[in-house]
Amino acid sequence: MFDATQIPGGPGAGVLVARAAALDAADELGKLRERFTLPEGVVYLDGNSLGALPAGVAAATADVVARQWGELLIRSWDESGWWTAPERIGDRIAPLLGAAPGQVVVGDSTSVNLFKALVGAARLASPMRGKMLVDASTFPTDGYIAESAARMTGLAVTPVDPSRAAEEMDGDTAVVLLNHVDYKTGRLHDLPGLTAAAHEAGALIVWDLCHSAGALPVGLDEHGVDLAVGCTYKYLNGGPGAPAYLYIAGRHQAGFDSPLPGWNGHAEPFAMTPGYLPAEGAARGRVGTPDILSMLALESALDAWDGVSVEAVRAKSLALGDFFLACVAEYVPQGRVESVTPVEHDRRGSQVSLRTDNAREVMRELISRGVVGDFRAPDVLRFGFTPLYVGFADAERAARTLGHIFG
Amino acid sequence: MFDATQIPGGPGAGVLVARAAALDAADELGKLRERFTLPEGVVYLDGNSLGALPAGVAAATADVVARQWGELLIRSWDESGWWTAPERIGDRIAPLLGAAPGQVVVGDSTSVNLFKALVGAARLASPMRGKMLVDASTFPTDGYIAESAARMTGLAVTPVDPSRAAEEMDGDTAVVLLNHVDYKTGRLHDLPGLTAAAHEAGALIVWDLCHSAGALPVGLDEHGVDLAVGCTYKYLNGGPGAPAYLYIAGRHQAGFDSPLPGWNGHAEPFAMTPGYLPAEGAARGRVGTPDILSMLALESALDAWDGVSVEAVRAKSLALGDFFLACVAEYVPQGRVESVTPVEHDRRGSQVSLRTDNAREVMRELISRGVVGDFRAPDVLRFGFTPLYVGFADAERAARTLGHIFG
Repeated sequence: MFDATQIPGGPGAGVLVARAAALDAADELGKLRERFTLPEGVVYLDGNSLGALPAGVAAATADVVARQWGELLIRSWDESGWWTAPERIGDRIAPLLGAAPGQVVVGDSTSVNLFKALVGAARLASPMRGKMLVDASTFPTDGYIAESAARMTGLAVTPVDPSRAAEEMDGDTAVVLLNHVDYKTGRLHDLPGLTAAAHEAGALIVWDLCHSAGALPVGLDEHGVDLAVGCTYKYLNGGPGAPAYLYIAGRHQAGFDSPLPGWNGHAEPFAMTPGYLPAEGAARGRVGTPDILSMLALESALDAWDGVSVEAVRAKSLALGDFFLACVAEYVPQGRVESVTPVEHDRRGSQVSLRTDNAREVMRELISRGVVGDFRAPDVLRFGFTPLYVGFADAERAARTLGHIFG
Repeated sequence: MFDATQIPGGPGAGVLVARAAALDAADELGKLRERFTLPEGVVYLDGNSLGALPAGVAAATADVVARQWGELLIRSWDESGWWTAPERIGDRIAPLLGAAPGQVVVGDSTSVNLFKALVGAARLASPMRGKMLVDASTFPTDGYIAESAARMTGLAVTPVDPSRAAEEMDGDTAVVLLNHVDYKTGRLHDLPGLTAAAHEAGALIVWDLCHSAGALPVGLDEHGVDLAVGCTYKYLNGGPGAPAYLYIAGRHQAGFDSPLPGWNGHAEPFAMTPGYLPAEGAARGRVGTPDILSMLALESALDAWDGVSVEAVRAKSLALGDFFLACVAEYVPQGRVESVTPVEHDRRGSQVSLRTDNAREVMRELISRGVVGDFRAPDVLRFGFTPLYVGFADAERAARTLGHIFG
């Protein structure tokens, strides 16, 4: 683990401020900040919980309400493209996940999509296998939903530390559920290696991308992932509670048997036939009528990604994290904080989590001084680095403010 | 069935126009139309599919986007009441359903809520019973979801004609699922009688209120309903794909075992404990993060109901339907349309469905002439009467336009 005490001394605040300015000046993504509306005077490092407001969303939402709903009314299901939004927006998200078109569908919450994915995976797996291997450090909802999916498909959950997951995959493993980046520690797990290990064991793997998609390359197709889910309100800036997505690899679509076969996932929804015939493609992951206001706000929000390379975002994210850690080492007195996020680039997502005493109070104080991160019980300060709108001066100010609190 | 040919002749258009004007002048609910933004020159009789835009929603949504999300950002989960919205808005809908507070929670789609309700009911029912009785004329998604819920709880679906459902309820019936008003015919089913019959048989009953809530009194508590679901984008005007709701009767809440135990339904969501401990009350029906934009648009939309009695809405709805049928009898040549909606008030919801040849083309022509209803395959024209913003002149014009098309 990184320990700020291990980095003695430092170049001093003046040097760090100048270095931040130089890094921001050289940052090719720096101008993307104009694509967002951010509150004045605030360093916002909580985009890993709720992404900032993209500049075009207010106007887009106003149009959806006043014109598409208020004037066109029911006609908008066709004329304003409401009906096809889940697949259309899925195809806009797909490149950020390294997925070819036709495999991502948007709608429902992450939890609901996870239920579809896990039950779908269990039904695709060999019926002779009885084990669902689940990331024990996962965001809790994943564990709760996994328990329910296992219970309803006759599997039993085995919790596993992701770093030892490969060893636990065996001939009885039907399904593996892992988080790409841990929500609390910011630790990045080895998606290519663990996916290969699951396949070698004859299991299917489901990845939760909530804390990675939009922050780093995922490569779903390249690495042969089976199913994946993720939210859109963190690094994708879709807005509070924006609809989540479900990825169903093309090769599994014909066999994907959803536990939530709503009429929107039917091959001919308006035929209103009594028997369920699932749609072709990812659309069979749809359930009920999509929440259009939230969904079209997300669609507008994705404009912020136009012309942006995920690789460039990743490079900046790592640089921001490195710089933040260096600033913390300089500003925060020895021994007061300890990073629980790995220092190594290949084991780190896009947040830095610092363990400290009185973390709840420290975060409250940070927020009152205009540095917004968040607190996760019992002792973690989370700082999310969202390269589309966070710069190096933000990282420096955040660390300096933290230092003042401990000073 | 009502048959326009059975009402010979009629008072003529001049008389009907005058009568509509008199009825509108005497209508105490007529002024509620000002609470909506409706397109110019259009008679909108599709509020049973997508309710019209309430006047305050545009401003409310703009505030949610620009200030609550854009400025307050993550703080809005507390400060703007985002976190508690599902229960708060549930309590605002509850009086329209005849439900005391604490039993209705908003979120997810109707299909997803139906899955929770049916699995929850199956788990509350005696494990010795094997049958799920399902309305065979139901909106298709209900049947699809019922099949999945039955499959995953070890029950078998028996389709039943709602008018004969009571006879089919027996000692093997675990759960009954019925629609309060049929989406296609507009037929109202006997909720008090069928609920009592289900209980007499020792079964639990789940009602789908999509086509009744907001149009007529439901009386969930009074009639001892076990569980219910419904959408909010029809008579409640919540907007396209607005979140649905789930009613869990107080007496069942402690035993309600959701198949979708997401972190939002946990007793202590932010404790992030690995084990699932469901929240008290209807909140255990929550799953993932609520879609705030859609949800708060719905909350604003419900302002249209301030001071409105559901009984008054019901009386006007029936009067509108009666008047529309009388106008159809006058204007439409004999034998060209036939009502599939019962004439009797106690068997009719808030829509009138007319069967005709070439229904698809007839509806297209009506819409081109400014009368918006909808078409349901293969031969039904649907006209929804939403008393908050539809008047008697609308009904007269709709029937007269239909007459012109056949004339």
